[in-house]
Amino acid sequence: MSGTIEVPESSSVAKGKAPLIATPAQEKAGWKKGVAIIDFLLRLGAIGSALGAAASMGTSDEILPFFTQFFQFEASYDDLPTFQFFVIAMAIVGGYLVLSLPFSIVAIVRPNAVGLRLLLLILDVVALTLANSSASAAAAIVYLAHNGNSNTNWLAICQQFGDFCQTASGAVVASFIAVVLFMFLIALSALALRRH
Amino acid sequence: MSGTIEVPESSSVAKGKAPLIATPAQEKAGWKKGVAIIDFLLRLGAIGSALGAAASMGTSDEILPFFTQFFQFEASYDDLPTFQFFVIAMAIVGGYLVLSLPFSIVAIVRPNAVGLRLLLLILDVVALTLANSSASAAAAIVYLAHNGNSNTNWLAICQQFGDFCQTASGAVVASFIAVVLFMFLIALSALALRRH
Repeated sequence: MSGTIEVPESSSVAKGKAPLIATPAQEKAGWKKGVAIIDFLLRLGAIGSALGAAASMGTSDEILPFFTQFFQFEASYDDLPTFQFFVIAMAIVGGYLVLSLPFSIVAIVRPNAVGLRLLLLILDVVALTLANSSASAAAAIVYLAHNGNSNTNWLAICQQFGDFCQTASGAVVASFIAVVLFMFLIALSALALRRH
Repeated sequence: MSGTIEVPESSSVAKGKAPLIATPAQEKAGWKKGVAIIDFLLRLGAIGSALGAAASMGTSDEILPFFTQFFQFEASYDDLPTFQFFVIAMAIVGGYLVLSLPFSIVAIVRPNAVGLRLLLLILDVVALTLANSSASAAAAIVYLAHNGNSNTNWLAICQQFGDFCQTASGAVVASFIAVVLFMFLIALSALALRRH
C-alpha cells in the first residue's frame, strides 16, 4: 500500500482495461447498442414501406377497355392533387430514411453519442408528421373514392376504376405501416436518451 | 472545527439550504425547470387550439335561405365522415392534454423525474399522430370542397355553402397549430431527457 507501487495500477485502470466482470456502465452500453441495432432494423423496414408506398401510388394507372370517339377513360394518381402530394411526401420520407442510415450505424458503434440520438429523434418527429399527413389525406380521398358521399353528390369512382382503387388503397396501407414504424423509432430513441 | 459543533451545520446542508453560488448540478436543475415551465405553457396553447378546432368544426352548420317544398338545403359537419372523425379525434386530443396538465406540473416541481418525462413524450407522440391524422384528412376534404375535382366529377360545394367552408377551414388551421405545438413539446421533452 505504498504510493510508488500503486501508481502504475491506477493508470492502467484509467486507460480502460476491461475487467472480467461487466460493470453496470458496460451493461448499459450493451443495452444501448441493442437499442441502436433495433433502430437500424426498424429504419430498413420503414424505407421499404415508404418507398413501396410511393412507387405503388406513383405507378397506379388504369385505362378502361372501352372508349368513345373522343374520350378514353383513364384514372391515374395525378388526377388527384392529394395523391400527387402523397407520392412526393413518401419519396421525401424514404430519402430521409436512406440518408439517416449512416447516422444509425454511427449510433450502433458509439451507443453513448447523445447529440446524434437527439438529432435523429427530432428529425424522425418531422418525418413522422410528413408521412402521417400524406397518408391520412390520401386515406380520406381513398375512402371517398370507395364510398362516395351522397350529401355532397360526390360519386364513388371505384366502381369504374377498381384496379386503380386497389393500388391506391395498398399504397395507403403501406404508408401507415411506415408511420407505425416511425412511432416505434421515436419511442426507442427516447428510451435510449434517458439518463439511467 | 470540533465534531459536536459541525453536526447541525452538515444536517442543515443535507436539508437543502441553498449555497450562495450555484453548483453545475443546480444550474442544470434550474434549466430543466425552465423547460418544464415552457412545456406547461405549450400544453395550454395546444389545449386551446385542439378544443377550439373541435368546437368550431362541431358547430359548423349552414342552412341556405331558400328551400323547395320537400327540401331544405343544409350543410353540417356530420354530412362528411371525415369531419366527424375530426371532431372526435380533436376532442380526444384535447382531453388527453387536459389530463396531462397535472403531470406537467409534477415535472416542474421535480425536474429530474425521468420516467414521467419519458411517459409524457411517448403519449405526446401518440396524440400528435392522432391530431395530425384527423387534421390532414379534414384538410384534404376541405381542399376538395373548395376546389372540387374535374377528373372525378366531384363539384366544389363551397360556392353554395361558403360559411360552412369558412368554419371548417378555420378548424383545420387551428388543428395544425395544435400539431406544430405538439412537435415543439416532443422536441422539448427530448432535450430535457438527454443526459447532460
